[in-house]
Amino acid sequence: MNKVRIGIVGLGNMGTGHAAYLIEGQVNGAVLAAVSDIRPERLAQVKEQWGDGIRTFESPEEMFRSGAIDGVLLCTPHYEHPVQAIDAFACGLHVLVEKPAGVYTKQVREMNEAAAVSGKIYGIMYNQRTNPLYMKLRELIASGELGEIRRTNWIITNWYRSQSYYNSGGWRATWAGEGGGVLINQDPHQLDLWQWATGLMPKRIRAFCSFGKHRDIEVENDVTAYAEYENGATGVFVTSTHEYPGTNRFEISGDRGKIVIEDDKMTFWRLRQPESEFNRVNTSPFAAPEVWKFEIPISAGGAQHKEITQDWTNAILNGTPLLAPGEDGIKGLTISNAMLLSTWTDGWVDLPIDEDLFYDKLQEQIERSAKSRA
Amino acid sequence: MNKVRIGIVGLGNMGTGHAAYLIEGQVNGAVLAAVSDIRPERLAQVKEQWGDGIRTFESPEEMFRSGAIDGVLLCTPHYEHPVQAIDAFACGLHVLVEKPAGVYTKQVREMNEAAAVSGKIYGIMYNQRTNPLYMKLRELIASGELGEIRRTNWIITNWYRSQSYYNSGGWRATWAGEGGGVLINQDPHQLDLWQWATGLMPKRIRAFCSFGKHRDIEVENDVTAYAEYENGATGVFVTSTHEYPGTNRFEISGDRGKIVIEDDKMTFWRLRQPESEFNRVNTSPFAAPEVWKFEIPISAGGAQHKEITQDWTNAILNGTPLLAPGEDGIKGLTISNAMLLSTWTDGWVDLPIDEDLFYDKLQEQIERSAKSRA
Repeated sequence: MNKVRIGIVGLGNMGTGHAAYLIEGQVNGAVLAAVSDIRPERLAQVKEQWGDGIRTFESPEEMFRSGAIDGVLLCTPHYEHPVQAIDAFACGLHVLVEKPAGVYTKQVREMNEAAAVSGKIYGIMYNQRTNPLYMKLRELIASGELGEIRRTNWIITNWYRSQSYYNSGGWRATWAGEGGGVLINQDPHQLDLWQWATGLMPKRIRAFCSFGKHRDIEVENDVTAYAEYENGATGVFVTSTHEYPGTNRFEISGDRGKIVIEDDKMTFWRLRQPESEFNRVNTSPFAAPEVWKFEIPISAGGAQHKEITQDWTNAILNGTPLLAPGEDGIKGLTISNAMLLSTWTDGWVDLPIDEDLFYDKLQEQIERSAKSRA
Repeated sequence: MNKVRIGIVGLGNMGTGHAAYLIEGQVNGAVLAAVSDIRPERLAQVKEQWGDGIRTFESPEEMFRSGAIDGVLLCTPHYEHPVQAIDAFACGLHVLVEKPAGVYTKQVREMNEAAAVSGKIYGIMYNQRTNPLYMKLRELIASGELGEIRRTNWIITNWYRSQSYYNSGGWRATWAGEGGGVLINQDPHQLDLWQWATGLMPKRIRAFCSFGKHRDIEVENDVTAYAEYENGATGVFVTSTHEYPGTNRFEISGDRGKIVIEDDKMTFWRLRQPESEFNRVNTSPFAAPEVWKFEIPISAGGAQHKEITQDWTNAILNGTPLLAPGEDGIKGLTISNAMLLSTWTDGWVDLPIDEDLFYDKLQEQIERSAKSRA
């Protein structure tokens, strides 16, 4: 294969964005070969704008079986990702799925299993993994510069969404349409980076979601979650869509100091000696370790979506490892599902979660919602 | 009365500090008339250093009944505060109690009741209420500048205490000696300011305390607490003694924007129009309110302990209202007790708390501790 022939499913905002940089030839070794969208008028626009070189299909199933493509980029509503990915794998296609991987882990686990059976290249559009800030954070933690982690704290409340936003589509902020609120729609990146950059998945979670706070919607738009990790560390994740201006501040403290990412800067308060060592030898009741505060240099770059598509293309052509393997999508989603489940059960949720219980509880929400609309 | 004759109970670090500024005549209308301490050698030092003008007593009971004083400043271990205050009120004395008011709310409620019956002036040494930062915050919130509060978030993890500190006194960080850890010893100010500055007491609390984390102690030294308020707002309070360098960052978001206190500065992101109003009239899905960011000027001053003692003296002499009424001590303590109780019961705690249940659980800790030492 010289060029990966890509098909895009779903030409909404995201799908159209991906198409644009592919058409401009910004991804080496990839070409946009086909698109599918259920709206004939959207396909007519495509023909008019992009010409006949790109084949159009009214259904993804048809496109998957056309022989016109080698891989697909799935940009459809969340619920459809696993369904379409599983079909694409069955058709022998490589898959790059938009985030979130899906709405509930049960369907995402099935997607992961289908990917494994297929042996195809399976990626997820976690474009924030190309952000130099979070790449650097991950590298600092993985290399031991911060020492063993003791606490994580992410306040990510700058996802402001007005009622007008929620009213702009009938599917928005509904259990049936999107399968959730801020956790599934706005936070997938942060929920992924929280575990990816730290290398820690929570062991158990206790969370407190508010539904329709200051907004006329049925899903969660204000969440506080507490997490415990295997190594004894704890974490907090706070998010909302009704506060303005919100905050985006990620603090991680470890045995060798503290890192804070805020305002696109990373500050490191680094202990000259690990706290555990200092504490072991220190004999002065009010002494504390020597600390050096400095800003970590962050390289420019981070090509976001384009870089993830390039990375996935490279993997297809050269077998290089993926920055964002599709299998990882279940991690952030597990955390997200756990937060809702903890609220619904008003108790602790151990990870991995009881996927059937979550699925049942989600169905209850959908049914209740349908009744209240009827 | 021209001068309030003050007696100090307990000449440890705090008591000695109060004595020093009183002897220097830094509190108008007050004079240090007597001190009591259970250590005769400490009293001998007092005689030598401060002369015969100050009477000394080996027991507070004796001092309370000596006729030598009009009011007492209680600087004894936490458990003794209510016992001594109740006795002092019975002797017709005014009382200024060091924080925390006590260890459990049951005894503090009894102290408050004794104060009410006595009609004497009853204050608590919440010296941080004289800090211009928090006075300003309280004023901004009370005057409506921030609008209705939606979220509070205090990360107060800069209470670093090494093992050497904990080893420096056998009573330290024990249930029998101090009645708790970071909540009762380091956080009383923040727990008070959290409710005083915002004007909001939590309606219920779910908290997660770790005991002896990275330290060989039996009490809590790492806490994450989630609070819900009557108006629907939520809050987070995170504290620890083992992290270095810690953080002291208090963020409050409201209908008119956000205030953050950090590094002794107060930043206000103020919305030109309240969010609730903007949201009601806005018709553009991705629009947000106009926001102005600025630093709030903070006046110099805040005489801390001395100012609280002056304020209490003024109240005795002139009947002026107290900045820190003794009755307020139960508020922060209720929050503190609720956090422990939530951990011990692994569930929600409604406020006001079940004071008998807390007392019983505390006794269990003390007994378990005694057994493990035997």
